[in-house]
Amino acid sequence: MAKSEKKTITKQADDFPAWYQDVVREAELAESSEVRGCGIVRPYGLKIWELIKAELSRRLEDDGVENVYFPIFVPLENLEAEKSHVEGFSPELAVVTHAGGEELVNKLAIRPTSEAAMYKTYAKWIQSYKDLPLRLNQWANVVRWEKRPRAFLRWSEFLWQEGHTVFANEEEARSEMIKMLGIYRDIYEFMAIPTFVGRKSENEKFAGAVTTMTAELMAKDGKAIQGATSHYLGTNFASVFGVNYLGADGESHLGHQNSWGLSWRSVGALIMVHGDDNGLRLPPNIAPIQVVIVPIYRDDAGKEIVLSYSRQIKEFLGTKYRLKIDERDNQTPGFKFNYWEVRGVPVRLEIGGQEAGAATVTVFRRDLDSKENILLADLPVYLEKLMASIHTNLYQQADEYTRNHIYTIKSWDEIDDRSGWFRASWSEDPKTEKMLKERFGMVSRCLPPEYEKEGPSQSQCFISGQPAKHDWFFAKSY
Amino acid sequence: MAKSEKKTITKQADDFPAWYQDVVREAELAESSEVRGCGIVRPYGLKIWELIKAELSRRLEDDGVENVYFPIFVPLENLEAEKSHVEGFSPELAVVTHAGGEELVNKLAIRPTSEAAMYKTYAKWIQSYKDLPLRLNQWANVVRWEKRPRAFLRWSEFLWQEGHTVFANEEEARSEMIKMLGIYRDIYEFMAIPTFVGRKSENEKFAGAVTTMTAELMAKDGKAIQGATSHYLGTNFASVFGVNYLGADGESHLGHQNSWGLSWRSVGALIMVHGDDNGLRLPPNIAPIQVVIVPIYRDDAGKEIVLSYSRQIKEFLGTKYRLKIDERDNQTPGFKFNYWEVRGVPVRLEIGGQEAGAATVTVFRRDLDSKENILLADLPVYLEKLMASIHTNLYQQADEYTRNHIYTIKSWDEIDDRSGWFRASWSEDPKTEKMLKERFGMVSRCLPPEYEKEGPSQSQCFISGQPAKHDWFFAKSY
Repeated sequence: MAKSEKKTITKQADDFPAWYQDVVREAELAESSEVRGCGIVRPYGLKIWELIKAELSRRLEDDGVENVYFPIFVPLENLEAEKSHVEGFSPELAVVTHAGGEELVNKLAIRPTSEAAMYKTYAKWIQSYKDLPLRLNQWANVVRWEKRPRAFLRWSEFLWQEGHTVFANEEEARSEMIKMLGIYRDIYEFMAIPTFVGRKSENEKFAGAVTTMTAELMAKDGKAIQGATSHYLGTNFASVFGVNYLGADGESHLGHQNSWGLSWRSVGALIMVHGDDNGLRLPPNIAPIQVVIVPIYRDDAGKEIVLSYSRQIKEFLGTKYRLKIDERDNQTPGFKFNYWEVRGVPVRLEIGGQEAGAATVTVFRRDLDSKENILLADLPVYLEKLMASIHTNLYQQADEYTRNHIYTIKSWDEIDDRSGWFRASWSEDPKTEKMLKERFGMVSRCLPPEYEKEGPSQSQCFISGQPAKHDWFFAKSY
Repeated sequence: MAKSEKKTITKQADDFPAWYQDVVREAELAESSEVRGCGIVRPYGLKIWELIKAELSRRLEDDGVENVYFPIFVPLENLEAEKSHVEGFSPELAVVTHAGGEELVNKLAIRPTSEAAMYKTYAKWIQSYKDLPLRLNQWANVVRWEKRPRAFLRWSEFLWQEGHTVFANEEEARSEMIKMLGIYRDIYEFMAIPTFVGRKSENEKFAGAVTTMTAELMAKDGKAIQGATSHYLGTNFASVFGVNYLGADGESHLGHQNSWGLSWRSVGALIMVHGDDNGLRLPPNIAPIQVVIVPIYRDDAGKEIVLSYSRQIKEFLGTKYRLKIDERDNQTPGFKFNYWEVRGVPVRLEIGGQEAGAATVTVFRRDLDSKENILLADLPVYLEKLMASIHTNLYQQADEYTRNHIYTIKSWDEIDDRSGWFRASWSEDPKTEKMLKERFGMVSRCLPPEYEKEGPSQSQCFISGQPAKHDWFFAKSY
């Protein structure tokens, strides 16, 4: 799969979506498939997702969540049972009508999410309050047919995890919603990505939820990306699917439910938040290769010395880092530098005759495009600090960009072509949000908890002039 | 999900398939879903699969295989491109005809396996011999519509891994086939399951393969289970999908391909090989809980002492084992003993006042149903040896059972109701295998390499009297 020449990556400032496509292709993260709307995730891209998944898995397991696997097929009648749920998802469904050589009497939807696939069974499992809480998670593929696909962010099929819980009462289920949102915020911090967490508007909440909370983040063109969501479903699904339990009081009660999910669109977010004109920039935590050693030599004698020194460095560092020596003989160091920069490898060790002779290494950090020559003996301590510094720097750069691109406005007449989000006092009237969408192609992103506590900065809604309730974020989004 | 009373498990000798269903249900491994033929894998069952998967993942990664993810949808025309492939799979296909609210012009099959989904893209990725070998693996769900479903062993949807490789020539691709088969044999050994590896007959090989090799194992009722398969596909798919490369000789050559797969039917195999009349028996390597501590007390004073001692033991053992203290207050020790025996937990520590007073533990091993009282101070060393001993004992029991249930016969007239496999000299004429299937409901399982070297033990085919080629195994199977 080696490429013979470098293709150009569009500059971010020229055309951000084109830049994104270029990076996805050139870093060999993913590509389009023959099936419209579905993508192929290549090893380098999938490894990033696997590293995110491993960290989230660990956190869920530590929190006592267990994994389960339900069928990919959902009887259509189940999906239709919860009215707002089916209205939300039916335009995106893929439907199996034939199987095993026969037409199916009961058509099967491919799960767009698994509330309707799981909760009838939950009803069987739950009898008494002693069976609560039930907190299960599923790692799975889901299908939501996309008219306008975009790599990782919007493919018709995607990989994700979906948590589905049942609690005895609203209070417990609401605190679950907030806890899981906190885990998602932490996962994004693990990726060096700052998020704003908060509540979704009535229009924007999950189809079937009472409350949806979201972790929103800003791409480098100022658009918003919904990073993950955590829902309080109330008793909406429980009443439809019969999820009730016998309480300690001897009475039957409906379960209070949550669902919460994070998908591989997090990989898309990662690219859009950290990438630059040279390609990807990966924080060490989720870099498939954290350190690449590029040997530099001119002749066979030099090669022997430099390769042997490179291997010595690798051995010296042990298994602490995901490390690779690029020993390809048919490529120049310059080609290799570019090759690994496009792929966002956080640290490159450039090893030539000079380094071998002086027992030093030249350390290049991708996030700042800067180099330093240090003693090999100092490398372990240096690298440990460097990895932490790269993580912090990427986080701070993203945080600074985000904060610099939030504009407080009093009226929607102030909305212009600036890239970024708008903070504005809003009536929370769904009709006004539809007007905003029509006029500017943007909707509310979330109501952060601190804004919810504070009350609005302006008394009047920035769209309608009605009384405002709180300040919200508004933005175009991916 | 606690159950209020123990249900009976059918005895293996009375009705083995009923016993299997009972264990799957009582150990809370899995259950049927609303969608006919598809199952729900519950946390305890899924954890076993995750432990198998983790071990196989590690081995594949160590061997340099990388993971990839292709869409679940395969254009029907791709599936139809390789003639024997579509003939093999079309009766089992599930087909999506509608998506996104519209009827699809090009109908999409849900992958029954991914040769036809992947290899057109492989053709794009591979240009020159320098791009070879290509060795990729996918962890995914696949769908093969089942008329007679059985938990884990035969569900319409199942989870598996499928490896797909391209090599420059037949020799390399054939040695890949054998290498991966060896990894599968090792994975089954990791589960304390002996396998016979060998070649499949023409009738029984994978649809589209030149050669299929299999790891076969024997259930405790003497039937065979195909544990995993490794195929040499020759250039069959390569010629259809254009997987060719420019050789060092400047000429274009077709790639030689493999595919190889292991699914969660391995969990079904595990149950059928190790289980007994009391339920599951799990080898420590893949036991979700390796050690369960059951505190035994009569009153509150006793409870305090015993629980505190139990926690002390847990702390003493550290994180070496997947360990759980069953602190449920509303269940008797007898209930708990049975509960964990059904679930096959390899080791139970019974902790009562006597143990607490004498600083001892009573150790019960599930595989032999035997108990020993030992000093707490000796526990770490004792457990380490015990775990190894349980693994070895389970393996030996299975191995002994298997070897005792292979019968060498000279003619198919000797086939009777004995549970087990038959070893017989065979002409390898596909017609005779069809006759055998019709008369006895059995087919060949495999030709082990040692039999292939030796030549047949009888000169005449046990079915037809034609000249025999080799000794093969024949058996009924799941």
